[in-house]
Amino acid sequence: MDHPLILVVNDDGITAPGLLALVEAVQPLGEVVVVAPDSPQSGMGHAITINKPLRLREIQLVKGIRAFQCSGTPVDCVKLAVDKVLHRAPDMCVSGINHGSNSSINIIYSGTMSAAVEASLEGIPSVGFSLLDYSHSADFTAAKIYARFVAEMVLKYGLPKHSLLNVNIPKGGVHELKGLKICRQAHAKWEEEYIERLDPMGRPYYWLTGKFVNYDKGEDTDEWALANGFVSVVPVQHDLTAHHVIPVLNETWDLEAVSQIGLHEAGGESYNP
Amino acid sequence: MDHPLILVVNDDGITAPGLLALVEAVQPLGEVVVVAPDSPQSGMGHAITINKPLRLREIQLVKGIRAFQCSGTPVDCVKLAVDKVLHRAPDMCVSGINHGSNSSINIIYSGTMSAAVEASLEGIPSVGFSLLDYSHSADFTAAKIYARFVAEMVLKYGLPKHSLLNVNIPKGGVHELKGLKICRQAHAKWEEEYIERLDPMGRPYYWLTGKFVNYDKGEDTDEWALANGFVSVVPVQHDLTAHHVIPVLNETWDLEAVSQIGLHEAGGESYNP
Repeated sequence: MDHPLILVVNDDGITAPGLLALVEAVQPLGEVVVVAPDSPQSGMGHAITINKPLRLREIQLVKGIRAFQCSGTPVDCVKLAVDKVLHRAPDMCVSGINHGSNSSINIIYSGTMSAAVEASLEGIPSVGFSLLDYSHSADFTAAKIYARFVAEMVLKYGLPKHSLLNVNIPKGGVHELKGLKICRQAHAKWEEEYIERLDPMGRPYYWLTGKFVNYDKGEDTDEWALANGFVSVVPVQHDLTAHHVIPVLNETWDLEAVSQIGLHEAGGESYNP
Repeated sequence: MDHPLILVVNDDGITAPGLLALVEAVQPLGEVVVVAPDSPQSGMGHAITINKPLRLREIQLVKGIRAFQCSGTPVDCVKLAVDKVLHRAPDMCVSGINHGSNSSINIIYSGTMSAAVEASLEGIPSVGFSLLDYSHSADFTAAKIYARFVAEMVLKYGLPKHSLLNVNIPKGGVHELKGLKICRQAHAKWEEEYIERLDPMGRPYYWLTGKFVNYDKGEDTDEWALANGFVSVVPVQHDLTAHHVIPVLNETWDLEAVSQIGLHEAGGESYNP
């Protein structure tokens, strides 16, 4: 594609070093426009702002690139970018580079990935990038190289309809990384423990902490790839249907009974909470 | 199961009539505990509260039932309920009854469904319920009957691992509804348009509006079921991997090139953003 229009978003906010790294990674590939939250939005998932208005302000971020800060969530940034900044769907959307992992189930809590999902819902080839380093001063050198490679592949080959990519990059120099693996999402979860303390008025408050637990040792998973020095690329879909469960429910549930609900009601029988 | 422990959550907040309707629907089935947001949380998706503490306060909602209001998101409510209120995973989690549809792609924005997804991630059989009526004074009579039926089925037969249910109920009296259909999620989307206005200081603001567009006319979809008077039950999974895309990427991408990235770097070649 000749000089594609590339939307860059993130969830760590407009001042995050990871956003600049992603701009630098994709800037040689086309025309780049940035729309990012004006404050950190980690853990916002697919939240959208319904009950209040949004603000959008053009700022100077990198010379030669249009950049806007938005008062909303990462998903709001994508929606506003398409409708009010670009006035069309961009040719690609890249989100990140997130400071910290979005592998496995983290995708579901991640503003970075939700922004990419939203762009994909709008038919835009879309990728979320995350570096396994929470530090503000993380080294994005290797991450930028892999981000450019993935962006080039997406621009060159496109992505199958209704799919996007979740790319996670291990910590380490470019010579320490072993390459890139196409993976599935590992079945892992967070085991929560809330810290419980008393505030200065003696009232309890709770603060989320947790431990990431991976039950899935498959060598085709993103967790395996990352633990073994590979960049993980998980293709993601937004059809959440568990198709294999449809016949299970049709076979086991008492669907005869439910077809009688109206009749029972008519007859004054007991099926009434 | 003998007197199961049932967690009831929602996203419309602790004062929503739909929450009371759901409590009434499941109260005869076991011991019910409510943990719900202290304010409306529609559109919060899978957001979690990371950067500030949460509050939890026991309140009087329905006689004989423990109920708590929480300052966080619907997903926070589930996490806090398990860790700090119940001190164990409940036997079932039901979320809703949402005032308004969560069919098709709405699931991805929905706090109601995200709460159910979170419970499912913790291994709890879980269902989100929504009524296709946004009104505060909506009639939940038929919705309660179907919610109880579904809850009974889930308690009786369980749910396959890593799956939960998204149940949507059309508007209408119990005799108008035609029964219940097990469905897949329709491929539909929102087409956004932001209202753009000036505030009293003359600065622009943007407010989300949109039109729901369904491109998927399949008679096995939730949209078809709802349009034809059926309650829709979509089994939902939290593995977001687009498994069919893995071989596509492996076949088309220049993965040879990426395995050379470290070497290129060592040789001082150009693959460096």
